Amino acid sequence: MVKGFKASAVSAGIKKNGKKDLALIVSDTPAAVAGVFTRNRVRAAPVVLDMQRLEVGLCRAVIANSGNANCCTGEKGMSDAVSMTRAVADSLNIDSKHVMAASTGVIGEPLQIESVVGNVPDLVAGLSPQGFESAAEAIMTTDTRPKCVTRKGSIEGGTYSITAIAKGAGMIRPDMATMLCFACTDIGVDSAALQQALNYANERSFNRITIDGDTSTNDTVLVMANGKSGATVKTKDQGDAFAELLSEVLEVLAKMIVADGEGATKLVEIRVLNAASVQDARCMADTVANSNLVKTAFFGEDANWGRIMAALGRAGVVFDPEIVDIWFGESKMVENGAGCGSEAEAAAAGIMRNSEFSVTIDVKSGSGSASVLTCDFSLDYVKINADYRS
Amino acid sequence: MVKGFKASAVSAGIKKNGKKDLALIVSDTPAAVAGVFTRNRVRAAPVVLDMQRLEVGLCRAVIANSGNANCCTGEKGMSDAVSMTRAVADSLNIDSKHVMAASTGVIGEPLQIESVVGNVPDLVAGLSPQGFESAAEAIMTTDTRPKCVTRKGSIEGGTYSITAIAKGAGMIRPDMATMLCFACTDIGVDSAALQQALNYANERSFNRITIDGDTSTNDTVLVMANGKSGATVKTKDQGDAFAELLSEVLEVLAKMIVADGEGATKLVEIRVLNAASVQDARCMADTVANSNLVKTAFFGEDANWGRIMAALGRAGVVFDPEIVDIWFGESKMVENGAGCGSEAEAAAAGIMRNSEFSVTIDVKSGSGSASVLTCDFSLDYVKINADYRS
Repeated sequence: MVKGFKASAVSAGIKKNGKKDLALIVSDTPAAVAGVFTRNRVRAAPVVLDMQRLEVGLCRAVIANSGNANCCTGEKGMSDAVSMTRAVADSLNIDSKHVMAASTGVIGEPLQIESVVGNVPDLVAGLSPQGFESAAEAIMTTDTRPKCVTRKGSIEGGTYSITAIAKGAGMIRPDMATMLCFACTDIGVDSAALQQALNYANERSFNRITIDGDTSTNDTVLVMANGKSGATVKTKDQGDAFAELLSEVLEVLAKMIVADGEGATKLVEIRVLNAASVQDARCMADTVANSNLVKTAFFGEDANWGRIMAALGRAGVVFDPEIVDIWFGESKMVENGAGCGSEAEAAAAGIMRNSEFSVTIDVKSGSGSASVLTCDFSLDYVKINADYRS
Repeated sequence: MVKGFKASAVSAGIKKNGKKDLALIVSDTPAAVAGVFTRNRVRAAPVVLDMQRLEVGLCRAVIANSGNANCCTGEKGMSDAVSMTRAVADSLNIDSKHVMAASTGVIGEPLQIESVVGNVPDLVAGLSPQGFESAAEAIMTTDTRPKCVTRKGSIEGGTYSITAIAKGAGMIRPDMATMLCFACTDIGVDSAALQQALNYANERSFNRITIDGDTSTNDTVLVMANGKSGATVKTKDQGDAFAELLSEVLEVLAKMIVADGEGATKLVEIRVLNAASVQDARCMADTVANSNLVKTAFFGEDANWGRIMAALGRAGVVFDPEIVDIWFGESKMVENGAGCGSEAEAAAAGIMRNSEFSVTIDVKSGSGSASVLTCDFSLDYVKINADYRS
């Protein structure tokens, strides 16, 4: 529970399976707002709208639908995004500039805007401080579980809460905000400091995950802060403490997203140590984390480190393959570019039977390190994505 | 049949299934040689060896094994690659500097060099002008079909032939020679002109295909020209004519490789028209061709053009999504960034039921065009790669 925020969800008939597909989050009073968005050049209409409205710096409500991305939908798309927010504004009697929108689902089909607008009164009527779990369900697409996290913090002046919901599942890659996430906090903080905290937290969470290397057109992370707890960020230290807690919340959600990646059966942290630079480490970790061959080997519980070496070699980074060490969990598989033998293989195979493990790559070229969370690549990923629209 | 070349293959027990896994190609006389190799920073021992020996400019024989990549195998790896070539040189009584080696298969396991060396006498004994199909079988890994192509050409002075074998299947992406290919021709041409012809042909064939976006550590394309036909390249026009025929041979093989990609059920040409530059067009085509979401939709015969738009948007290229047109085959699916409706969908769905079709993307930003051959992403890709080593 986070003071002064309510949420709700309904089924508006956008998803073909009749599940909840429309969510609303409302702050009792205008909240400072910050956001990060997809860097894809193809942006959904609600993303374009939110980027404009973010400049206002204040937000009262976010309306989000699943089942349709409202992307590549031309002028009607933008008009529909505006209509979604206007319906909420009218029903709550607030300024529609203070309403944000988000959509997720199939690209290129017109949004069923009448269903959305027609369901707004029910959404508003259902608003409740306990509504976040339900809202988290309503933004799911191929997610199998709702993702909702709450954390409490304290700074001088009082305690405060952050509650955030997110959805992920596919089209996830670590070069931007990679999904939908809405975070609400009752701390008091101005929108500039809030944006700074979000940038910090986003870099440590959603920008460190990958599922399939594809990048959504709809990625949106919004944070609202309404100050209702009485705790207020006044100093840089307080701002830093808040940013850390926000980061913790988003990291938990990011991990939940990867663990619930389309078809995922394994959650794997790829850590690159001692690259020539942090950027090099990041490139190497990303290339390994996105390699289909590496990910199918994870699915097969096969410690096929040769595929990791091959991925490192095409990362576009200068390094010496003949000094690389690789560990699966705590078990060293590769020393100076060559395999450590069958005992190490057996140990690694044991580690890979876990649903969560790490792969550590020491390139011994400098002091740059980075890590990325990824998942395995299973038969179900293909099944889910071959049939997604049908 | 190409004059003065013989080939053979045996099963040396490197592949666990007992199939042919060792191939030899021999020219009766020293042949001019040219090569292109993987740009992966992690290079197999035989790649490193061949790159050195290519400087000699002459070649008598190539020995190649499947089942083991002889990569990430340390000093033993290089010593094994040298031993392979020395066994051939001893058996043929030629200089081992004139013998090249190639390996393909699992990375990181020591090569069973005794089996290789022990089988060289049988390989040599089996040499035959009709041995190329058999050699093509012996270099297969997860390929389901041998790939062998012969073409005849004529220039002033006579007719000549090119026979080439190749293998592909996985770890294929279009930023280099992406597999093993050995081409033999009885035209006379010096090694500099031969290299030029190969560069031209490679750019038009193996550098335009992708299967899974991964890049092998072992990619090797070698062309040998022994002049036995009597036809000799003397002028630039003759060189160009030869380069065109070589390109035709490699293009046929490249197409065979994609059609036989791991788990592939569809062969799809991604064509990008009117990008700001050829490089932009190439980036866009590559990003679409490598998108798991696009490729799984191909497998599902789902004309999900939104995924194509999303892939274009993350290609790192400046363009206006709202003027993009997309065709499936001859059917326009997207006009100015928006879908053309259910009739177009139905037509596209029909086209996707074919085993071969094209997707054309007009970005209307300039005059740069490019195309890439890709395949769909099926359940079998995951099955094959989850179990590859076991």
